[in-house]
Amino acid sequence: MCLFCYSEDAISEEVVQCLRLSSFDSMQWSDEELLALLYFMFSDLGLLEAFKLDLVTLRNFLFQVYKNYNEVPFHNFRHCFCVAQMMYAMCVKADLPKRVGELEVLILLVSSICHDLDHPGYNNIYQINARTELALRYNDISPLENHHCSIAFRILELEESNIFKHMTSEEFKLVREGIIRCILATDMARHNEILAQFRDAVLQGFDYYNKSHINL
Amino acid sequence: MCLFCYSEDAISEEVVQCLRLSSFDSMQWSDEELLALLYFMFSDLGLLEAFKLDLVTLRNFLFQVYKNYNEVPFHNFRHCFCVAQMMYAMCVKADLPKRVGELEVLILLVSSICHDLDHPGYNNIYQINARTELALRYNDISPLENHHCSIAFRILELEESNIFKHMTSEEFKLVREGIIRCILATDMARHNEILAQFRDAVLQGFDYYNKSHINL
Repeated sequence: MCLFCYSEDAISEEVVQCLRLSSFDSMQWSDEELLALLYFMFSDLGLLEAFKLDLVTLRNFLFQVYKNYNEVPFHNFRHCFCVAQMMYAMCVKADLPKRVGELEVLILLVSSICHDLDHPGYNNIYQINARTELALRYNDISPLENHHCSIAFRILELEESNIFKHMTSEEFKLVREGIIRCILATDMARHNEILAQFRDAVLQGFDYYNKSHINL
Repeated sequence: MCLFCYSEDAISEEVVQCLRLSSFDSMQWSDEELLALLYFMFSDLGLLEAFKLDLVTLRNFLFQVYKNYNEVPFHNFRHCFCVAQMMYAMCVKADLPKRVGELEVLILLVSSICHDLDHPGYNNIYQINARTELALRYNDISPLENHHCSIAFRILELEESNIFKHMTSEEFKLVREGIIRCILATDMARHNEILAQFRDAVLQGFDYYNKSHINL
């Protein structure tokens, strides 16, 4: 696949408006177009300037992500795109870059993109009951989510796809902690617990300056 | 090393009495003698009968454990023995097989024996800061303890060293959960949190029938 056939600059205003809606239909687009749209999200959210992301590294990163999704019925690259697009739409709608800062937005977008990397198509219950390699490696503790996250940082360890290479070590530490927290939170076994915490935060009055609220 | 040179039957009553003391000096014994003493602990605690452990499988298991400790200054096979011996002494002193049942005692003894398997000699802080393979694999979450535990169950996956092979799937599930809980609890970063819970349990009045107390 030629990643460079589709230019991010060619995205029309009409497409941008659609991309910001929760009703965006990803099925109309090819994989390479989806990659270009992902690239556009980084740009549109102001992340290229904020973190000195360069075009080639970001494209390499996204292409590595693409290659590391499997052709499984659901948890494939298109699912990754759908989740990232919904996150992007919410970031724009809620004006998150201004409210929580670009670092948190970067964490949310990268986590969405990476959250099911190398998914084998079978869930955690299967992994644990079948005593698979992943269950054995992760001691039955969110084996899939731990694996997705580990693959994400293996991609980021590659010099050519390390979009975080210009960060200070303190920034990198925060981003790494944030992405790990977000991806591990996608284990549906933890859904009710996290949702209850979020509801409590909303009932208290959601506070954009409260780190424990932001982390939800 | 010949594992069969030293017979468990030849352990004198005097040695047994020493083995039950917290002051037992492991430095007087060779590695093969320590292996025989570990074997004796299983026997003395009634675990051979309770779980139909056979001599050859238990010896194979212990030898695999021995082979999977590294020659590092501290977290080596002798350290494994020291921790297991202290656990054995406490089990005998507190009459734990009767108080908490053989399954819990099996979990405690196997966890002690396996708790530092394949330790590379550098701590978690080093692993995380140096972005080692283990930190990358385990997303900075107790990378060493997760690895020790994973190695333990890889040994137990081998038919010839699977001391749990005669268990029902329900028993195996409990043992696996217990060993994972115990080994992950050896991360010293969690020491204060767990110790505080234990102190609370003791202040409330330690209850041998309360699972949350037993799990401490």
